[in-house]
Amino acid sequence: MPESSERLIFTFTDFGPGGPYLAQMEAAVLAEAPSARVLHLLSDAPRFDPKRASYLLAALLRELPERAVMLAVVDPGVGGDRLPLYIELDGRVLVGPDNGLFAPAAGQARRSRAYRIDWRPQRLSASFHGRDLFAPVAARLARGLEVASAPLDGSMLVGAGAPSDLFEVVYLDHYGNAFTGIRGSQVKDDRRLVINGQVVSHARNFSASSHEIFWYRNSCGLVEIAAREQAAAARLGLEVGAEVALLAG
Amino acid sequence: MPESSERLIFTFTDFGPGGPYLAQMEAAVLAEAPSARVLHLLSDAPRFDPKRASYLLAALLRELPERAVMLAVVDPGVGGDRLPLYIELDGRVLVGPDNGLFAPAAGQARRSRAYRIDWRPQRLSASFHGRDLFAPVAARLARGLEVASAPLDGSMLVGAGAPSDLFEVVYLDHYGNAFTGIRGSQVKDDRRLVINGQVVSHARNFSASSHEIFWYRNSCGLVEIAAREQAAAARLGLEVGAEVALLAG
Amino acid sequence: MPESSERLIFTFTDFGPGGPYLAQMEAAVLAEAPSARVLHLLSDAPRFDPKRASYLLAALLRELPERAVMLAVVDPGVGGDRLPLYIELDGRVLVGPDNGLFAPAAGQARRSRAYRIDWRPQRLSASFHGRDLFAPVAARLARGLEVASAPLDGSMLVGAGAPSDLFEVVYLDHYGNAFTGIRGSQVKDDRRLVINGQVVSHARNFSASSHEIFWYRNSCGLVEIAAREQAAAARLGLEVGAEVALLAG
Repeated sequence: MPESSERLIFTFTDFGPGGPYLAQMEAAVLAEAPSARVLHLLSDAPRFDPKRASYLLAALLRELPERAVMLAVVDPGVGGDRLPLYIELDGRVLVGPDNGLFAPAAGQARRSRAYRIDWRPQRLSASFHGRDLFAPVAARLARGLEVASAPLDGSMLVGAGAPSDLFEVVYLDHYGNAFTGIRGSQVKDDRRLVINGQVVSHARNFSASSHEIFWYRNSCGLVEIAAREQAAAARLGLEVGAEVALLAG
Repeated sequence: MPESSERLIFTFTDFGPGGPYLAQMEAAVLAEAPSARVLHLLSDAPRFDPKRASYLLAALLRELPERAVMLAVVDPGVGGDRLPLYIELDGRVLVGPDNGLFAPAAGQARRSRAYRIDWRPQRLSASFHGRDLFAPVAARLARGLEVASAPLDGSMLVGAGAPSDLFEVVYLDHYGNAFTGIRGSQVKDDRRLVINGQVVSHARNFSASSHEIFWYRNSCGLVEIAAREQAAAARLGLEVGAEVALLAG
Repeated sequence: MPESSERLIFTFTDFGPGGPYLAQMEAAVLAEAPSARVLHLLSDAPRFDPKRASYLLAALLRELPERAVMLAVVDPGVGGDRLPLYIELDGRVLVGPDNGLFAPAAGQARRSRAYRIDWRPQRLSASFHGRDLFAPVAARLARGLEVASAPLDGSMLVGAGAPSDLFEVVYLDHYGNAFTGIRGSQVKDDRRLVINGQVVSHARNFSASSHEIFWYRNSCGLVEIAAREQAAAARLGLEVGAEVALLAG
């Protein structure tokens, strides 16, 4: 297990749970930090979609242990000119591509400092920087080691100034619940949502709902469209990207 | 790795393999037991279906190491009035909701003692007791620490007195094999099963079968409907809940 | 974490990511090697298909750390008369069934020595040698312990002499990219491929492609048919086993 000073490393990706990329990335972490503890937090982030993924990431980040290192790779532009970066953020660290994936998290942080990663591995593949670049950097940061880098002006990051809430579905979980990009703290209980033409009221949780379909504040703090013991997404025909509106008053 | 005195922790859930819930629960374990070893035994239990899941759980439990701690969360009633509990059971421990999920396992045990969990975390979400309540309790029990609790009369548990075998399909694996809730020890080799109108004979295993579709005693001790190098479930149109009968004679 | 002398253990299977088999196998490793580190490299290998899986395995193996132990189970003939074996291969070790799964890897190795596993566990199920036989053997080899075995003539292994490249699709990843069994080193950039009647040109990576569909050398060294931010497999109607040809000239 980790040395007492070592930080937990979490992965957040669109790699899928079955394929080779997660373990390859984990092996790359272990090559630099043999005693690291790696938890695969999410492997089914919206594919090729850093924007929607970014709101999910910001929400999940709030639940992570202090000093967690988040290795976040939703990176359709890999091999292009997007910067590799890491961001120190209220004691946690994010490592990944500068494509907007970290924008809401950085915007909501009390303090954040961004760095361009200048370190390069001996071998850098054209298509898998998660394994070749971001994983060893995350491992080194988790151990408290130096990584060649240069401070970045946070306001220059891709997506800087993005709103803190996205009025869209950003994730469908295994139950068919639809996470929105709206923080639960921003919506009062008496508000109703409109999605795919259907009006949805609030319930405290699954047991408290008197409606088949309802919205509630989920366990990572987001407004979620859910249904009792069935898949809300299938019932309402929801996909990632579906728009959500607050019904007036 | 675990201290020599520390017990392995297994998870059994309907969370799905890709989403955030498994790792969030694991992180909650590590917060209480930083050196714990957590194995995700099953993440695709029948959704919202503690009854079918309970027969799968009982079978898998028999294969676990002595002193294993099983963190089992198929919990559609989360946030309602179902009790949180743990059960000591032939040296192993089950932690989870009192909704019938543990009934066959408890019924088949030589010795079992059930406890209502009275301990509560500082923050208890309305919808994710797996992370907020059951995970820290499992971690503490794995370490041999106290957890505020009170003995329960086992006969008062939900599902107490449930039969030891369920004549239904309880799980479809990745190959499309159909696990039933019937213990293999209860059915002789010369018996034939009827499922979806089709009669199925016994084979010792995949290599020994002369039939395309057959039943056998699978590696966790249950009667399973299988097919050689193809998906029996698709061939026979099986879903979780399909009824299985023993053919007379 | 591992003792400094202990080797990482990787699993490569067609078990699927959600079901019980991976963790059962991992628990069997830990019973023999409590401090072992087990990484689940791939759990969605082509089902029942050691031949296609073998080319994927050979490619992934090249990326693993030196001294890795690979526990590879795509084993439709389990319970039949196929031999259990392990192969020492340029410092790494493969453990699994003799059904052709290791043939390309062994053929491409500088040095390889194969052994028939003679050791047997106290209990050997009829259908899950991954858990009962191969996992404890891998654990013992990772620790440097003896395993009862006998040298095999490598030329007698199933699939010995198989070609080093397979001109077929061998794997579809979570993005819908289609891995072929062709090593990238064997195809020059100016060559075009034909697959399902469509001609596909080379690009260095996703960012460099000016075509919607292209081939490139992927991060494990194989020729892959890919598409920018979409699923090439769906676009071209590809499945595992689809034939790939080099266009003349």
